[in-house]
Amino acid sequence: MNERQIPDDEPGEHIRLDLSAVPHVLLLLDQRVLPRVVATIRCSNAHEAARAIRDMVVRGAPAIGITAAYGFALDVLAGGDRQRAAEVLLASRPTAVNLRWAIERMLPVPTERLLDEAVAIHREDVAINRAIGAHGLRLVERLGLDRGVRLYTHCNAGALATGGYGTAVGVIRAAHEAGRLERVMAGETRPYLQGARLTAWECETSGIPCTLVTDSMAAAAMAEGRVDAVVVGADRVAANGDVANKIGTYGLAVLAKHHGLPFWVAVPESTLDPRCPTGADIPIEERAADEVRGYGELRWAADVDVWNPAFDVTPAALVDAWITESGLWSPS
Amino acid sequence: MNERQIPDDEPGEHIRLDLSAVPHVLLLLDQRVLPRVVATIRCSNAHEAARAIRDMVVRGAPAIGITAAYGFALDVLAGGDRQRAAEVLLASRPTAVNLRWAIERMLPVPTERLLDEAVAIHREDVAINRAIGAHGLRLVERLGLDRGVRLYTHCNAGALATGGYGTAVGVIRAAHEAGRLERVMAGETRPYLQGARLTAWECETSGIPCTLVTDSMAAAAMAEGRVDAVVVGADRVAANGDVANKIGTYGLAVLAKHHGLPFWVAVPESTLDPRCPTGADIPIEERAADEVRGYGELRWAADVDVWNPAFDVTPAALVDAWITESGLWSPS
Repeated sequence: MNERQIPDDEPGEHIRLDLSAVPHVLLLLDQRVLPRVVATIRCSNAHEAARAIRDMVVRGAPAIGITAAYGFALDVLAGGDRQRAAEVLLASRPTAVNLRWAIERMLPVPTERLLDEAVAIHREDVAINRAIGAHGLRLVERLGLDRGVRLYTHCNAGALATGGYGTAVGVIRAAHEAGRLERVMAGETRPYLQGARLTAWECETSGIPCTLVTDSMAAAAMAEGRVDAVVVGADRVAANGDVANKIGTYGLAVLAKHHGLPFWVAVPESTLDPRCPTGADIPIEERAADEVRGYGELRWAADVDVWNPAFDVTPAALVDAWITESGLWSPS
Repeated sequence: MNERQIPDDEPGEHIRLDLSAVPHVLLLLDQRVLPRVVATIRCSNAHEAARAIRDMVVRGAPAIGITAAYGFALDVLAGGDRQRAAEVLLASRPTAVNLRWAIERMLPVPTERLLDEAVAIHREDVAINRAIGAHGLRLVERLGLDRGVRLYTHCNAGALATGGYGTAVGVIRAAHEAGRLERVMAGETRPYLQGARLTAWECETSGIPCTLVTDSMAAAAMAEGRVDAVVVGADRVAANGDVANKIGTYGLAVLAKHHGLPFWVAVPESTLDPRCPTGADIPIEERAADEVRGYGELRWAADVDVWNPAFDVTPAALVDAWITESGLWSPS
């Protein structure tokens, strides 16, 4: 096995180095067009990696960190300035803390070891996610159900959002592998439809029973007893436990509380941000109005004013468990 | 003025008789393709009117009732059997009670007066909606804000959903006309996007300041103080006050309660169903999976399992006011 080969992840190698190209090139599965089109984007430097992150070719906090690490390594190996490469990558998306974490880990690494370090970050992430899955499975078992669990998830905190296996979807995968999952319900996650396009596709690909709903159906599903627990990922967790994640997460947490359902956040420790005291200190990215006025090339709304925050903040009080690779985390 | 002319309604004559055609024809603005395409569908009998209702050319509980009344009149005038026409129309959509109300009102009317009765139902509906708006304005005034009110609405309970002016949008229009509205926030209302396509367009057309959001943004908007009250329409209100309305309404009611915001339901009395004891007795229509897997001709999701209830039930305990043409209603 080549030392730089990426470990197997499900459902495929969505972030990988083309080692046959000299200099090496980063290949990213274009998540904007999945599952209808399977296309790959090539990145050779920090600018191209930053553009791929900003344009959401790759998304999900851990996957953004891994992509930034590769982009940084390729840029410096091609003679780029370390500080400039770091700045370009850090400016690509403001909310995910893993981006900063990955760059800070890469900055002091000697040039000849940069690619190995990026691969190490990638490999470690898959191992972290399997550990998160194992800890999440214990929470599922503690529910004491006499049938498989019905989990609800939002956006895509799956293999595609990480180095592989997934965080929230990692918990779902672990429950499925243990024969403890009845079904996952995936919210479609407007406006970018990561649930409909990515989570549903990942589950289908992995043989995990999945039911797709619009985000507006979550409350009715809970009221009808179709959900036992909600599990989501996060882009950043503040020191007090407040959680920034894809827009719609906060509403799900309120609904879960109303229905007496546990609300779990599955994150690698690199998503915890001790320098960020509370959720109010997390910058929330606002994106283009046309994302809400339609989808892709299609526009269905009139030329109306739009509010389009990409994330929201769920107060710690609404979170029942933060699942990390070390087990259950608590705000200090 | 021709006795059968429809009163002016905003933003246009979306349900009207073509009196120049012999026999007369019902012209329906095709709400499936608004606002990108303005097209009209012609109905000459109960079957065609029922198909227009089932296919959502026309939607909204009061508008469905009015369309059914016209369809019934044209069918019987063309020699159709009354009972058969009534059955065909009643089978078109199960949840809205106005459909049954309108048919029961039409059934005993002498043939020569059927068209006048349908026009009367239509005219009365506009007057009812203006009265609902006036009563809703009093609730807005009672909020005691020192600025214009910020209302959140879901789906389209507007002119297009009624004979004209609208129920929930009627309250919004009345507040706007009185200079008491700062802005309405419209949830896009997946999967059929009545908020994005119809409410946003109605507001734009009427000069009402409107901000469009995805349904998943309502919770964050409430947490940020962007909403003072929620106002929605309904397809049926049970005797105990439980409200069946477009999927997503129940979740909004839970969110409003969590944020201490009033939740108002604006309905004509024809939407109250005394024969239906509670929300559990209201049939909830489930629609095709492809509505959730994409939009229109576009499919973005894999061939995944879908749950697609068209409506949900909001318990009376989450409703702060039921606004009818007579004032504030209470469950008896």
